Parts: sequence; structure tokens; C-alpha cells
Amino acid sequence: MERPRHQGMAKNTYMRWRLPLVCLLLEVAMIVLFGVFVRFGPEADAHWEEEKKEMNVSSDIENDFYFRYPSFQDVHVMIFVGFGFLMMFLKRYGFGAVGFNFLLAAFGIQWALLMQGWFHSFKTGKILIGVENLINADFCVGSVCVAFGAILGKTSPIQLLVMTLFQVTLFAVNEYILLNLLHVKDAGGSMTIHTFGAYFGLTVTHILYRPNLEQSKDKQGSVYHSDLFAMIGTLYLWMYWPSFNSAISEHGDAQHRAAINTYCSLAACVLTTMAFSSMLQKKGKLDMVHIQNATLAGGVAVGTSAEMMLTPYGSLIVGFICGIVSTVGYVYLTPVLESRLHIQDTCGIHNLHGMPGLIGGIVGAITAAAATEDVYGKEGFIKAFDFTGSYKTRTPSVQGGFQAAGIVVSLVMAFAGGALVGGILKLPIWGDPADETCFEDDIYWEVPEDEESDVYHMHSPGDKPASP
Amino acid sequence: MERPRHQGMAKNTYMRWRLPLVCLLLEVAMIVLFGVFVRFGPEADAHWEEEKKEMNVSSDIENDFYFRYPSFQDVHVMIFVGFGFLMMFLKRYGFGAVGFNFLLAAFGIQWALLMQGWFHSFKTGKILIGVENLINADFCVGSVCVAFGAILGKTSPIQLLVMTLFQVTLFAVNEYILLNLLHVKDAGGSMTIHTFGAYFGLTVTHILYRPNLEQSKDKQGSVYHSDLFAMIGTLYLWMYWPSFNSAISEHGDAQHRAAINTYCSLAACVLTTMAFSSMLQKKGKLDMVHIQNATLAGGVAVGTSAEMMLTPYGSLIVGFICGIVSTVGYVYLTPVLESRLHIQDTCGIHNLHGMPGLIGGIVGAITAAAATEDVYGKEGFIKAFDFTGSYKTRTPSVQGGFQAAGIVVSLVMAFAGGALVGGILKLPIWGDPADETCFEDDIYWEVPEDEESDVYHMHSPGDKPASP
Amino acid sequence: MERPRHQGMAKNTYMRWRLPLVCLLLEVAMIVLFGVFVRFGPEADAHWEEEKKEMNVSSDIENDFYFRYPSFQDVHVMIFVGFGFLMMFLKRYGFGAVGFNFLLAAFGIQWALLMQGWFHSFKTGKILIGVENLINADFCVGSVCVAFGAILGKTSPIQLLVMTLFQVTLFAVNEYILLNLLHVKDAGGSMTIHTFGAYFGLTVTHILYRPNLEQSKDKQGSVYHSDLFAMIGTLYLWMYWPSFNSAISEHGDAQHRAAINTYCSLAACVLTTMAFSSMLQKKGKLDMVHIQNATLAGGVAVGTSAEMMLTPYGSLIVGFICGIVSTVGYVYLTPVLESRLHIQDTCGIHNLHGMPGLIGGIVGAITAAAATEDVYGKEGFIKAFDFTGSYKTRTPSVQGGFQAAGIVVSLVMAFAGGALVGGILKLPIWGDPADETCFEDDIYWEVPEDEESDVYHMHSPGDKPASP
Repeated sequence: MERPRHQGMAKNTYMRWRLPLVCLLLEVAMIVLFGVFVRFGPEADAHWEEEKKEMNVSSDIENDFYFRYPSFQDVHVMIFVGFGFLMMFLKRYGFGAVGFNFLLAAFGIQWALLMQGWFHSFKTGKILIGVENLINADFCVGSVCVAFGAILGKTSPIQLLVMTLFQVTLFAVNEYILLNLLHVKDAGGSMTIHTFGAYFGLTVTHILYRPNLEQSKDKQGSVYHSDLFAMIGTLYLWMYWPSFNSAISEHGDAQHRAAINTYCSLAACVLTTMAFSSMLQKKGKLDMVHIQNATLAGGVAVGTSAEMMLTPYGSLIVGFICGIVSTVGYVYLTPVLESRLHIQDTCGIHNLHGMPGLIGGIVGAITAAAATEDVYGKEGFIKAFDFTGSYKTRTPSVQGGFQAAGIVVSLVMAFAGGALVGGILKLPIWGDPADETCFEDDIYWEVPEDEESDVYHMHSPGDKPASP
Repeated sequence: MERPRHQGMAKNTYMRWRLPLVCLLLEVAMIVLFGVFVRFGPEADAHWEEEKKEMNVSSDIENDFYFRYPSFQDVHVMIFVGFGFLMMFLKRYGFGAVGFNFLLAAFGIQWALLMQGWFHSFKTGKILIGVENLINADFCVGSVCVAFGAILGKTSPIQLLVMTLFQVTLFAVNEYILLNLLHVKDAGGSMTIHTFGAYFGLTVTHILYRPNLEQSKDKQGSVYHSDLFAMIGTLYLWMYWPSFNSAISEHGDAQHRAAINTYCSLAACVLTTMAFSSMLQKKGKLDMVHIQNATLAGGVAVGTSAEMMLTPYGSLIVGFICGIVSTVGYVYLTPVLESRLHIQDTCGIHNLHGMPGLIGGIVGAITAAAATEDVYGKEGFIKAFDFTGSYKTRTPSVQGGFQAAGIVVSLVMAFAGGALVGGILKLPIWGDPADETCFEDDIYWEVPEDEESDVYHMHSPGDKPASP
Repeated sequence: MERPRHQGMAKNTYMRWRLPLVCLLLEVAMIVLFGVFVRFGPEADAHWEEEKKEMNVSSDIENDFYFRYPSFQDVHVMIFVGFGFLMMFLKRYGFGAVGFNFLLAAFGIQWALLMQGWFHSFKTGKILIGVENLINADFCVGSVCVAFGAILGKTSPIQLLVMTLFQVTLFAVNEYILLNLLHVKDAGGSMTIHTFGAYFGLTVTHILYRPNLEQSKDKQGSVYHSDLFAMIGTLYLWMYWPSFNSAISEHGDAQHRAAINTYCSLAACVLTTMAFSSMLQKKGKLDMVHIQNATLAGGVAVGTSAEMMLTPYGSLIVGFICGIVSTVGYVYLTPVLESRLHIQDTCGIHNLHGMPGLIGGIVGAITAAAATEDVYGKEGFIKAFDFTGSYKTRTPSVQGGFQAAGIVVSLVMAFAGGALVGGILKLPIWGDPADETCFEDDIYWEVPEDEESDVYHMHSPGDKPASP
């Protein structure tokens, strides 16, 4: 299958020693750090039997496991199947989409358990983990999956591991600033996951700009079956998003409410996506790219506010707007970003995570600022925004201001971090593909012989490869 | 790809303004109605913190969210992935199957929240929603997905939205008659979802009868990969059906029992489906159509009785019978329905939902009529059939009679409603495809160029299109 | 499609009467046995309402259903979608992989409910079942799915049903010896499911050795799309494995801990699999076979110890090692097993379930032997190993010894049982395929006409079939 090529710049994509070395080094580091730092939290430790009595817990069902494990599994599916399959739309990059996503996420969750653990679960020298930590680790990796969408098909697996290492670190710092220093609410991660992840990824892809990428333009599209595989990813993201936005909310009404709001927002989003997909195409036909992506924008955009008293109709309005914004973005904005700003965004994450993430941050700030004791109840109000301790006197409008500040901080972290990491990834040592071999599994994967030849025969019958 | 065609009747399938208009109008209506009517139920409202004390609820785990959310998510997967992928078996209608199912279900759940809300959750001028309402909305849409199966490939997206609007309305009325007026039990919806949905859809497709549909006969079959995609739908329906039938049962033993009965019925159904699939084919080979569909009939047929004391062996017997009935239906009945009764049933919903739904209603009536205090226990008996208030004196045999009446009402509603809606859908304004372009994504979707050409090249090498 | 063939031994693969007969006989037997023996357990019986009071249960949420149902559904997905799709990697055996897995599992769970019921849930003449029994039935069938992987593509559906009948029986006996007689812990089934299932399957395939199997060598590979379908199976197994290993652990901390340990082990396993997959290939490219399989070895290998205090870093170490062992096994061991030991292992179950299962048993024995009251707490220690009643005085090191004995017993049962069942399956009455028609759906399934012809046209353009 090695065809002679006109390569302006011959790239060395040979992974044999580099990739194993990086993987093994990272994993050994994980083991050492876990050995030093990570232990079971009280609800997962065998001492729980005694702890229960001390904490006056009457039943095992009060273990946080039963509050959160079903949501955790849904989130887990979103990260590995949702993102992995959504990115499978490219005709010859299915292995890379699902396989590299698998690799970076498997590494990322380990590193996130450590980074987030140091910031949030560090007690007497140890990180004590439970099911909520697993969810948060998955969330953190979600932001890496988002960024992966911008550079899909143009990077080596080593670059992805390096990016994951840095992005998880920056994510944890940003999250700490927002949740702990600014005391911002962001249970579904409109700011910490989507805004940060998207603008980080867009900055990285801008720095890695490839002026001659049109050389692999023929492989940037989808084929019929790849679009169907991608719909598996879309639907699992869409269906489980209520679990995503409610997974780490407070027990009880907050989790319940977050799921309902997200359900409503996503439903509305589908209708406006379909409407604008048809409206913006000359022949009025629906475009799979929009259905696969813009239908999810409603979930992103209630990520901050879903656990608040956004109300079902408020959620519908947010979903309504985001379906439109996202679809319009795919049609008009993505081409401009590439031609004017040199941002080559393979999956259009700016439309699915960037703009809806920003909207989500703003909606969250407004919803928080508009909160009243009347709407939440006296106790519910305090619980919803955690107005306790040193935040006892914070008012809703002040909270709204801090929420807005959270958006700005996330953007600054994304741009600065993305520039730094983009610069590192530009070093010519990571084995990234040449422009004409982007979006091509053949570079990093053993691809079954015969079907590959089919594809070449089939897709360009008049354009036979030199050496068949 | 626009090939010259001999069209007896040129159809205008241009969707550009009509589809967006319908989508946006419907969604704006939803927002207005949600704004006026829909609010969080007590367990999802921030006042829950105070409510808990009043209601003497000791723990957040008592929130209905934790009893039902895992089942809700399973049902959600069944509606969007289960039905969406099951209908993907057609060789060139994958986008339409999963995409239109997505569209109609996303609209349907919103409208169902309203319609069912007015009937069942209307308090002091507001519809108060919680996780059980989400499940019921998904259930209601399930009946639309069933009906969609009959007209799959022969209708425009606008027709599907119009049908959803009407069918959800009629569903809610029928459900109200059964559950509230007749005081019938139907937790898994053998009558309300399957019987109603199937005969509604069959009536609609009868009215939309296309005498020249054989013009697109070549596209009515499957290809190897489309059958594999369809198996994803089948398996998710099959695996999660225990959640479906138990999702809204009473807390505790009823949910537990409903899951076990459904599990048993479905397991038996697989064996008789395989047996008859092989037996009814000359060469003794298994037919994917049967495996994809008839294996699910056991779930449909215990929809009413699963939460009752049907017992595991009773469930096996029901599953045993339904696998046979359904498979035999595919082989012998479906062709007759088309040739004699002019019922063109794309997915064979009569075999999967119609007949098994009727059986389910009958099994439910018998199981109810056979109930005794001995089998249920004194309290369990009252709880299982809700023999309280004005139903305090109802006996099992009377209950059985009412259950049977529920079947009849559902059938009448289905035929009458289907005739009405079929008549509306027959109006020549909705942009449905011509006979020779049925079962073809190309009409309403942008289909990736090259693979499409492949398909034409490949499937009929001697029959080249006029303008390649 | 019936091509003339040179068949040394004409095989009769005609299933028309044999398969239906076997299916119907087995299912009727199930109904009779269920009728005689199986009833609802107390938590699924309508008497629960009264039982609750007697047992002083304060809330319906204490019903075991809510502790285990979400895990049950995850396990259910693993058995039917996980195994079914993982085995879909063969280019022309997708129907057989998912369809036969469906058939044998649907039968197997019924038979397992009986067999395991007699051993573990038999009270006053009846088997009383609840959600835990459903999980255990799925587990038991999991071991059959493992064995199926070894003989995939080389057996008739009747052979699979016969194997299931015997293997489930032997599984239940082995499980009884381990759990009840040896008082061994094995919640995730490293020994009972994986070691037993793998070596049973390998023995069967050894006895069914086909010296001329290279006649169907061209069909033993994958194509691009079949590899993507297989990744669906892989990911669902990978994601839900924490549910698998925790599904039947004690309520509370044990379930919680088992999920965390499995999550960690699996994450580490992905990195070492990727590392060695690239390292062991000349061009350094990743091999889908490894990604699809070896990434799961970490889940197998903590099956015994996940619910113990293995600790997160201990889990990482186990996953680290198993990714390597499994990948190396695929590259070096599988070919040797075939050429030297005449073990034709279609899916490489020795690498995914055999060796990791053994490692899992050993890790479990060591973890048990190393347990101290200090690590587990006084009460936690007793609860974790159930050191009560006649086991009150058992020490950790003795427990470790019994755990090790459990491995040996499982191996012996697997070899002896596999030899017996292999011998039965070798009888020339079951309709297995000839060597040149192995790995080919066409033998037992109606395969859509046109795509099949495509495949022949496409895959070997110069090698036209005799009668097209």
C-alpha cells in the first residue's frame, strides 16, 4: 500500500519505539504516583463498616455509590463511545477516531484522578477517591476529547498523549480557580469542560496550522457507513447528557432537576437544528454533519444552569437558540475560521462546544443572578449556591458576576494553555503525518488489506494507484 | 446524482421552507405552552429541602429520581437507539431511519409531557414534572416509533411531525380512558403503546396505500452491513425491555417482578423465533428479519402482566408463543396483508407490536382475573391492582373484564385515529416521495457523493446510470 | 450463490428440522422445569409488602433491586452486545457472531437460573429468584460466550446449544465447589468465568481440530467495517467491566471498591496494550486485534480481587502486566498453540480470558493471603471474606491457599469438561460446516443477495466465481 508520493517535507511517522516508550513511561509514572498518593475514600474502604456507625448511616444504600454510579456509567459511555464514535464520520479515520480517543482517555482519567485529587480530595497526605472522583476524571477527559475534535486526523498518538498530559493539568488548575477561588457553580461544565476544551483545542489547531491541508481534502469527507457509525456517538451523547449534567450535582432535587432541564434543552435543540439544516441548504436537504453535532449544543449550553431553577421552558429556549447558533456556525463560520483565522477545526468543535459553552456560561451567570429565595425556598437557596461559611453573605447578583468572571478565566486559560501546548506539539519530534496523509488510518494502524484496496478501486475508478 | 426518471406523478419533495417552518412553529408553540404550564414537581424543585421535612422523608435517596432514573435512561436508549437502529435495515434509508426517528421523538416527548401532564400531573393550574413524566413521555413516543415502522421510507419528515402531533394527542386520550376511567393496569403498555401504536400505524399506511410501490422494490431489502446496524437496535430493545416494563411500576417488589418476568419472556422468545425462522425457510437458513424483530415480541406481550404475579414460567410460556406467532406472521401474514388488505407494513409492525400487543392485553386480563389474595398477600393484592378508594370493592374477575375492555378501546381509538390522521397525511402538501423514490435517503438528505456512486456501480454493474 | 466446490468431505449443514427440534425441545424443558421449580424470591413477590414489616425494612429503596439493577443491566449489555459485537470482527461472520451469541445466551440464562438455583437459591422445594440470580445467570453465560470465542465460525448453532447445555451445568458444579465447599471469593469470576470458560473452550477447539482449516483462511481476517463493529463490543465490555466485577459484591463499600479497582486496572491495560502492539509490529503500527482484546485483560485479571483491598495502585499494576501478557500472547503464543498444540483459537481467548484469568486467580489468592485486620478494619475483615460460622477461624493465609486451590479445580473441571463436551460435539450429527465454509454466514443464514456478490466481486476482482 505504500504509494510513491510527492512530499514537500518527508515526515517520519514511524512509531515503533517512540509510542511504546511514551506509553510505558507515563503508565509507570502513574503507578508510582498512585502508590504514593491514591487510596480509597471512606465509602469505598473496608473500614466503611465501622465508619457507618460513627457517621450514623443507617443503610448501605446511603453510600454515595448508589446515588452516582448509574450516572457515572452513562458519562463513561459518553466519553468512550460517545466521543469515539462521533469522530468516526471521516471515511478513512475510524480506527484513529475510536482508538486514539480510547488511548488518550484511558491515560487522561488516571492523570486527572491525581491532578483533581490534589486539589479537591487531598487529606492527610493521601488522595481519597470514590465514585465522584471517577466522574470528575471522566469530565476532565471530556475536555480533552473536545480538543481532540479540532485536531482529529492531523496528529500522532504521541502528540495526543502529550496534549492530554498538559491539558488535564491546566484543566485542574482552571477548575480549582473557578470552583474554589471564585466559588462558581458549573456542575455540567459549560465553562470548565466545553469552553475551556474548545478554545484550548482551537488554539492548538491554529498553531499547528497546515497551509497545504487541501492535499488530503478527499479524505476529509464521510461515506454512508461512517455517517451511520457517527450517529451511534451522537445518540449516546444526546441520550446520556442528562446524566452528564446531573452526575455531580447535590443529592436529591438538584440531580433530579439537572436531568429534567437537560432533557428539555436537548429536545428543543433537535428541532431547530433540523429546521436550519434544511433552510441553509439550497435544495433543502438535511446535512448529517448538523444532525450529528448541533443537536447536542443544547446539552452543552445548560451545563452550568441545569441544576439551577432554570425551569423546563427556560431550557427549551436555551436549546432552541443553540440549535440555531450551532448549525449556522457549521455553515458560515467554520469556513471563515479556516480561511481568515487559520483555524482548521476538523469536527467543528467551535460550533458544538465553543459557542454553546460560552452561551452556557452566560446563561448560568444570568440564572444565578436572577435567583431569589422565593423561587428556591430559604434552605434550597443556600444549598443550591452553597452560600455557607465565608460565602454566607454573597448575593445572587454578586454570584452572577463571579460566574461571568469564570467564563473569562476559562477563556484566558484556554488561549494561553493552548498556545503553550500548541508550541510544544509543533516540535518536529512527535511523528505527526504529512499534509497528504492526514485523515488516513493507514499511517498509524495496520489496516486490513483487501477492503483498503476496495476503497481505492471504488472511490476513484479512473485514478488508479501507481502500484496496485 | 439526479438521474432522469419516468415519473407517472411528479412529486415536490422540496423541503427547504416547509420543514423549517413546521419545526420552528411547533417548537415555539412548545416553549409558549411550557412557559404557561410546566413547572418542576416537588421532588425536582429546590423547595424539596423544605418539603422533605414536611413529608417526613429521612433521606435524599427516597427521591423518586433514584428509584426510576436508571430505568428512564434505558427506556431513553430504546426509543432513540433501539427504534432508530432497528429501522436501519433498509439498504439506503439509514439516515432517514435514525434521523427522522430522532426528529419525531424529540418533538414527541415535549408534546407528550404537555398532553400527559394535563391529564395526570395537573395541579393548581400547572403541570408538575419529575422523572416519571419523562419516562411516560418516552413511552408515548414509543407508540409513534411503532407506527413509524409501518410507513418507514414512504413519508416526508413533515408528515411524520404531523402524525406525531396527532398520535401523541390520541395516545394521551386513550391512556386516560384506560388508566383513569377503566382503572386498567398497563405498566409496560401492551395496550396503550403497542396495540394502539401498531393498529394506528397500520391504518395510516393502509390509507396511504401505494399501488405502484414495487417500483422501489429493489431498495426495500437490506444489505449485509445494514442488517448489522439493525442488530444494534434489536439488542438494545431486547436487553433494556425489562427496564421498559418495570420503569413506572410501583416501588419495590412490583418493579423487581416486572423486570424478572420480562427477562424470562424475552429469553424464551429467542428460541422459538430461531426455531421457526429455520423451519419456515426451505433451506433451513435463519432469516435476519425474524431475529431482528420476532425476538422482541416476548417483551411486548408481557407489557401488561409483567408487574403482576405472572410468574417466571408463565412468562416463558408467553414468550414461547409470541416468538412463534411473530415469526409466522412475518412469513405468511405480511404478504397477505399487503396483497389483500393493501397494508404495506415496511417493518412488519403487525408481527412485532400488533399481534403481540393484543396477546399482551389478553394475558394481562387473564392474569388480573386469576389474581387471588393468596397469591398476592392481602396488602400486596390491594397494592398491585390499586383496589382503593372507589375501586375498593372491585374483584379480580371484574378487573379482568375492564382489562379486556381496554384492548377494545385501544383498537377503536387506533382505527378511528389512524383513519383521521391517514386522511390528513394524504393531502398533497406534505412533500412525500414518489413511488420510485421511496426507501431512498437521497430525497431528503445530503448523501456523501462517492459511496453513493459506489452503491450504484456495485449493486447493478450492468445497469449504469445515464449521467454518472 | 451455490458455487461448485472441491469438498473432501461433504457436510450436511441443513438445519431445517434439526435446529427447530433442538430449540423447541430445550425451551419446552425449560418451561416444565420453571413450572415445577422457579418462583419469585421474597423481594420480587407481592407478599413483600407484608415481608417488609416482618423484616423491619423501612423503605422500598432497601429492596435489592435498587442495589443491583443498574449493574445487572450493564452486565446484560456486556453479554449480548459486548461479546456479540466483539466477535463481529470476521469479514463474513457478523450474523453468526451476534446471532448465535444471542441464541446460546438466551438459552443459557434460563438453564443457568435453574442450575445455579438448585445449588444456591433452593428453599423448601423451590428456586426463589431475584435480581442477583439474573446477574449470576448472565455471568454463567459469560463463560459460555468466552468458550464460543475459541470455536467461532467453525460450529453449527446446534453444537453451540449442546455446548451451552453442558457448560452451564459444569459451570454451576465448579462454582458450587469453589464458593460453597472451598469458601473462595470470586465476585468478578476470574476463576469461575474466565479461567474455566477459556480452558474449557480451548479444550473443545483442540478436540474439534481441523487440519485443513487454511482452506477458509481468506475469511478469517477482518475488513475495515467489521473492525469498527467489533470496537462497539470492545468498548461496552471495557466501560461496563466495573459493573461486572462489582455486580454481586456485598452492598456498600465492597461494590464501590470493586468498581474503582476495575476502572483503574482497565485504564492501565490500555496503555501497555498500545505500547506492545506498536512495539511488536515491524512498522510500529497498531493492530486492531490487540486493541479490541488485550485492552480488556485488565478487567479479567482483577475479577477475584477487585472487591478486596487491592488498592488503586495495585490495580494499575495488574492492568499494566496484563496488557503486556495479552498482547504478547496474540503475537507469539496463538500461532504456536495452533501449530504445536492443535488449538485453533479464533478470537484468541487464551490471551484475553485464559492467561489473564489465571493471573486474576493468583492475584486474588495473594490479595486474600495478605489481608490484615489493620487494612480492612475488624468488622470489614470479617465481612470481606465472610469469616463467619464454620469459617470463623480461617486465617488470610489459609484463605489464600483455598483461593489457589480454586484455580486448580477450575482448570481440572475445564479440561475434563471440555474433553467430554468436545467429544460429544465431534459426533457427525450436529451439522457443522466443512473446512472451506467455515467463517461464512452463508451456510446458516439467508444473506442479502447483492451485497454478497459485491464482496466477491470486490475482494477478488480477478477470481470470478464459476456461476455468478
